[in-house]
Amino acid sequence: MTMTRVKDEAIRRTSPGVERASLPEAVLLGHGGGGRLMQELIADCLGVLGPANGLDQPNDAACLELPSGERLAFTTDSFVVSPLSFPGGDVGRLAVCGTVNDLAAMGAQPLGLSLGLVIEEGLQREALAQIIASIRNACEEAGTRILTGDTKVVERGAADGLFINTSGVGLIAPGVLLGGERARAGDRVIVNGPLADHALAILAAREELPLQGDFHSDCAPLNDLTAAVLEAGGNGVRALRDLTRGGLAAALNEIARQSHAHVQIVEGAVPVRPAAKAACDLLGHDPLSMANEGKLVALVAPDRADDVLAAMQAHALGREAAIVGEVKSLDECRVTARTALGPTRIVDLPSGELLPRIC
Amino acid sequence: MTMTRVKDEAIRRTSPGVERASLPEAVLLGHGGGGRLMQELIADCLGVLGPANGLDQPNDAACLELPSGERLAFTTDSFVVSPLSFPGGDVGRLAVCGTVNDLAAMGAQPLGLSLGLVIEEGLQREALAQIIASIRNACEEAGTRILTGDTKVVERGAADGLFINTSGVGLIAPGVLLGGERARAGDRVIVNGPLADHALAILAAREELPLQGDFHSDCAPLNDLTAAVLEAGGNGVRALRDLTRGGLAAALNEIARQSHAHVQIVEGAVPVRPAAKAACDLLGHDPLSMANEGKLVALVAPDRADDVLAAMQAHALGREAAIVGEVKSLDECRVTARTALGPTRIVDLPSGELLPRIC
Repeated sequence: MTMTRVKDEAIRRTSPGVERASLPEAVLLGHGGGGRLMQELIADCLGVLGPANGLDQPNDAACLELPSGERLAFTTDSFVVSPLSFPGGDVGRLAVCGTVNDLAAMGAQPLGLSLGLVIEEGLQREALAQIIASIRNACEEAGTRILTGDTKVVERGAADGLFINTSGVGLIAPGVLLGGERARAGDRVIVNGPLADHALAILAAREELPLQGDFHSDCAPLNDLTAAVLEAGGNGVRALRDLTRGGLAAALNEIARQSHAHVQIVEGAVPVRPAAKAACDLLGHDPLSMANEGKLVALVAPDRADDVLAAMQAHALGREAAIVGEVKSLDECRVTARTALGPTRIVDLPSGELLPRIC
Repeated sequence: MTMTRVKDEAIRRTSPGVERASLPEAVLLGHGGGGRLMQELIADCLGVLGPANGLDQPNDAACLELPSGERLAFTTDSFVVSPLSFPGGDVGRLAVCGTVNDLAAMGAQPLGLSLGLVIEEGLQREALAQIIASIRNACEEAGTRILTGDTKVVERGAADGLFINTSGVGLIAPGVLLGGERARAGDRVIVNGPLADHALAILAAREELPLQGDFHSDCAPLNDLTAAVLEAGGNGVRALRDLTRGGLAAALNEIARQSHAHVQIVEGAVPVRPAAKAACDLLGHDPLSMANEGKLVALVAPDRADDVLAAMQAHALGREAAIVGEVKSLDECRVTARTALGPTRIVDLPSGELLPRIC
């Protein structure tokens, strides 16, 4: 299904005509935003690579079955966040957590990570050493380690300080089956806490916020939380996604597409701190589309939802977890939000790059 | 042993005194060159991550043993080559081959690769599509595929066109035991063909060559060749290394250090095309230190060396393979070259960045 979609898109995009002509010739910032433009770039330029998980982005990591029957999750992320340090973390912590969380969303525990550094000449060694210390600490927190690495240095002006790639390999426990294509009508939508703090912490660090606020990135490794969720929910847990670029809106739209589902959330039930809500309102951003780095959404069968919620709330990284919606049906592909006043609105896949270099 | 070395270095570098004071405060281009400066940066800034294979660079990839007993190789590389295209390849082909070759040097066949793109805003989609096509073709050549990916776009000036990270997971066949620490006195040193062509092709593409010459990168996936080598040499194959940054000089110095070995090569036996030799002479570079992307060195027990050489020469990527030296003893750690006139010279680990952004 995934493959067909990519191929169809690729054919459509590469066929001559108005649509092709209207595509920009150059890559734009918005193509990196995790939204529609990015999907379009992937279909147009990367579709030839085939149904690569992650390239087509149906799930957070690829699943690899070995001759022994063991299943591995394998994922990669590059981190280009600006600035390199921000309240609640830095690019090093972000890199470890982002990759661990992609594995965790597949129900995998990390076996180890790789670390690829692209350093701009002139980066202070002190700053680099601090970021490496963050990497080590985040690895310890997640119970994993850096197994292999690569270091490149490019001349001044050819990169912006430091870019990090972390890839990860994880072991999926026997019997665990998760995927955005597994949603069923009635499944509950659960998030593990308040949204939008990471994106706002980055904006505050860039002094791009229209108001004062004490925003800290939520950046944290979620693999211990997902282990608790899977223990509590068993096979009632259909899908997990970590909520990075494009936020809850992007994750639910992906799941809706994969399962051809109508997912409805109750806007008032989605945890967002008042200061974050106020900042998003002023910026004209939807908290549902804002990036997080320590949040996930779980789709859980109704009879296991309370157990999963309780397990989350018993965990340090899920104290403010909440059931925020449900899968209404499998006969249409859309995400809606019931608002405070009663009517519903469409929660669309974010279009382009709301906030460049947020991770 | 590896761990001790890193720790000792780290302690030495971080202890107060003249030596510490003399270290540059900022990262220099030379720190990315695969030579001494890079080792020093790794010890100083990255040593806290512990004995991570690859970070400490003893072998080309980490080895990961699963509960089932299956062994995986896991490796990562970032590619920042400039220009993005050059005779014989482009950054996409380079990225696939580089990572496949790191796995191959561990005796592993690739299970799949990840692809992390950091794109500078403004890169032409046509150029991107060509690089992606190269990636697909190189994957087909190596019998592997891209399993997972990530795309980031940064603003104009924040990156130079395109940086690619490829990580790879490979399966190590049962019984295969390779490593730079396994050298024995008498082992033969075998390379699969002429050196220095990749580096010279890049220099030619940058118009930095002092003479005309038809240089093509040797960029190629070596996993089929290594399979043939292992079949021919069995457990007589002690170590394989692909010869990228720092070339044969860096690879042999690493092996010498790992095995505390004296490795001696016969300069006249090392295959280098006459035009490449002439270009290196004019540039003042040692062909032994020049980067390759389709060459490897094998250390092979003397009784299996002829079989391995024959297997290489029977393979399209090893027609010009040659035995170029041997392990003289395990009682000193150095690499020497016997020159045409008889005396030997030290083949040192290259110091800094001879040729920035060569891969």
